[in-house]
Amino acid sequence: MGRVTVRRPVLRVRDGATSRRPDSLAAEEPMEIRVDGRALTVTMRTPGDDFDLAVGFLVSEGVVGAVEDLASVRYCAGATADGGNTYNVVDVALAPDVPRPDPSLERNFYTTSSCGLCGKASLDAVRTTARWTVADDPLRMSADLLAALPDRLRAAQRVFDRTGGLHAAGLFSADGELLCLREDVGRHNAVDKVIGHALRTGLLPLRGTVLMVSGRASFELVQKAVMAGIPMMSAVSAPSSLAADLADEEGLTLVGFLRGASMNVYTGSERVLTE
Amino acid sequence: MGRVTVRRPVLRVRDGATSRRPDSLAAEEPMEIRVDGRALTVTMRTPGDDFDLAVGFLVSEGVVGAVEDLASVRYCAGATADGGNTYNVVDVALAPDVPRPDPSLERNFYTTSSCGLCGKASLDAVRTTARWTVADDPLRMSADLLAALPDRLRAAQRVFDRTGGLHAAGLFSADGELLCLREDVGRHNAVDKVIGHALRTGLLPLRGTVLMVSGRASFELVQKAVMAGIPMMSAVSAPSSLAADLADEEGLTLVGFLRGASMNVYTGSERVLTE
Repeated sequence: MGRVTVRRPVLRVRDGATSRRPDSLAAEEPMEIRVDGRALTVTMRTPGDDFDLAVGFLVSEGVVGAVEDLASVRYCAGATADGGNTYNVVDVALAPDVPRPDPSLERNFYTTSSCGLCGKASLDAVRTTARWTVADDPLRMSADLLAALPDRLRAAQRVFDRTGGLHAAGLFSADGELLCLREDVGRHNAVDKVIGHALRTGLLPLRGTVLMVSGRASFELVQKAVMAGIPMMSAVSAPSSLAADLADEEGLTLVGFLRGASMNVYTGSERVLTE
Repeated sequence: MGRVTVRRPVLRVRDGATSRRPDSLAAEEPMEIRVDGRALTVTMRTPGDDFDLAVGFLVSEGVVGAVEDLASVRYCAGATADGGNTYNVVDVALAPDVPRPDPSLERNFYTTSSCGLCGKASLDAVRTTARWTVADDPLRMSADLLAALPDRLRAAQRVFDRTGGLHAAGLFSADGELLCLREDVGRHNAVDKVIGHALRTGLLPLRGTVLMVSGRASFELVQKAVMAGIPMMSAVSAPSSLAADLADEEGLTLVGFLRGASMNVYTGSERVLTE
């Protein structure tokens, strides 16, 4: 985890007074995800848990759903001209019977040739790709316990976030135990790392769990939760309209503005138990 | 701008008490950017200023650099099966002499076949693609004036952000005048909309200006500033390591944690005048 932060000098200005000192910045490096040697995407991420990131991305895109779908995951040596390894290219070899992803996968996830591109088409794409349903998940959680999750996330996060520049994603059990925490400069990467870790340890679908994210809840993050079978997502900040639409359609409980003892429940409020 | 926010019911929980009321959410819809009828990328964005977004994205990717590079920008009718227009597909027709982008553009921006994928290669890619240099920009700004920008941004932003879910990007002149403000669920989109507006009004390169962003400063945002010729970027929150590396290499002034009278100047501190 040595590359999670990088030190560099900074000029601090505080009420007119200046000083020079070193500062810790969140590390950011590009990573290319390949499937069977073929490049699929490049993401800018914080190094660490790279195999989880690659596998979690493929879960989110509907390519894999169980550890048996993986033949191997490895860094590509020979990625540089002198045969070196930058540890920034990860190749996922799929098991023989797993259908290969379309190379134009990113675009295809949001659109279909028959109906044009719109929010509705985006929702349809998730429904047709998802392996599991979360609508029937019997998870219930008290509002009090939900309200305790941000502090638990931050307490665990504080250990290694000295930069102020990382997004966090935490997976919690129904009784509020933190199962997995990942941080990244990209919030989608933090979620992919959590989900990839879950797949690689045989935990998918993640029934009965809550995914807590440090920032806002976008369509993309709700999509990732649905694709991993997670029935509840809570965010410290606001959701987008399409995030709430997708949560509504899929039966996922979406909580936003989770701060102190306050929260907004946008969808699936039957899972949040109040007095 | 009617689609910038969407109303939907929400269950509010405040210290154990619950109430149901409508809430405003930031609108999010997919948008496909086409060049000469060929799909290049899909981004999840807040509707509005879509032509600016499409054009600004092409500036960031090095495809266009002046309004003369554009033949036309339009929404694609016939994007749906019944010939309707979702206003989510924008086609940019390039002038005849403009080289067409490589269809695998996103990946190519970060990597070259000769040297593998790493942060250094990402910096090299920006250097070889940038049309303008920002290193020689004579912009100077006092720390006091810089410290006033976040409030000016928020004052302008508050008018139409009722959701708490939007990122803002503001372009300021050297004397602190707000030239252009855009908000979006995606912070990269907010920046692309500012830059696209500037190109379409003949303002590129944006010498002598400051780009202020509401969140963190990633490699991608610094890349966009460099590609538009902006010599200074300030962020309310933290930069990443690669953002600071790119700013350093290109001679862009990068300011972070700009809050109250305090800030951290990571690169190009000669442009920030202190007592």
